[in-house]
Amino acid sequence: MEHYRFVYDAVMQRKVIFDNILLHPGRKRYEYLILNDVNVMYRIDRQSKKCEKMFPGPWRPYGIPPMATFKTEYEIGYPGEDFTAQEWIFKEKDSDAVLWRGVYGLKYCFPVVETFFNPNNRSESNTINFYDIASGIPDPTVFLPPSECRDAVLVHEKPPAYF
Amino acid sequence: MEHYRFVYDAVMQRKVIFDNILLHPGRKRYEYLILNDVNVMYRIDRQSKKCEKMFPGPWRPYGIPPMATFKTEYEIGYPGEDFTAQEWIFKEKDSDAVLWRGVYGLKYCFPVVETFFNPNNRSESNTINFYDIASGIPDPTVFLPPSECRDAVLVHEKPPAYF
Repeated sequence: MEHYRFVYDAVMQRKVIFDNILLHPGRKRYEYLILNDVNVMYRIDRQSKKCEKMFPGPWRPYGIPPMATFKTEYEIGYPGEDFTAQEWIFKEKDSDAVLWRGVYGLKYCFPVVETFFNPNNRSESNTINFYDIASGIPDPTVFLPPSECRDAVLVHEKPPAYF
Repeated sequence: MEHYRFVYDAVMQRKVIFDNILLHPGRKRYEYLILNDVNVMYRIDRQSKKCEKMFPGPWRPYGIPPMATFKTEYEIGYPGEDFTAQEWIFKEKDSDAVLWRGVYGLKYCFPVVETFFNPNNRSESNTINFYDIASGIPDPTVFLPPSECRDAVLVHEKPPAYF
């Protein structure tokens, strides 16, 4: 279980992820700067200030993918403090393997839960719960690469599917 | 991913769980009748009508356990359709191993999410998401054992921790 903070720019296709915002002894704290607008991603170790450069995965906007299947609708919460959510799944083409499961708020279509299944082992999955969502980007400078990324070395590593 | 429907009686310590309420081809549909008030649990195969009797685990009321630790508080949903939830964890005595993680609504203290970690392998866990909660027991006869359970055979099996 890890806690991230992230800022998401749907228009410019940029995203910043702050790793382990709650204290997690013995874990590195990374910052991921994903700039699909310029096809670059940075991984910054916030302790050593080491910055590595890599290629981001294809941009994935939040929302229900066009080829997704509606699964069910339900209330989350208790009457008086609740809202309606819809569950959608996305299957592998020509297969019944569920790759993605998304729970989205009905009214504003914000993400509540997203689960990504490992296509090679479907008993393995990663689930993201979304909390404390706020609209707007409070500080756009968060997307500017820090100076330690100027001479960042290119590493050939695939970012996780849920990034 | 499975969908259950359940009815919970906190006062009498009774619970009925209906397995796989959404169609799930090739899966058996069970009904679990957990009657801690008389220390009996029935597992009924709803296709073959076979009923097996076993001993229930200790009664676990929904709510934050007395020895739980407060972890964090957040909003679930998007401003305008959201509510405040608190996350609590329960650790093994004399150890740092998290056994349970619960997300509960702040106002009415209803369950939103509960995760049970396997004490022998903490990378294994079961997560229950609660949906469509309604208060009250619409039909109390749901707790009456069906006739096929009159001569049920006792099986020595431990029900799962999250039951």
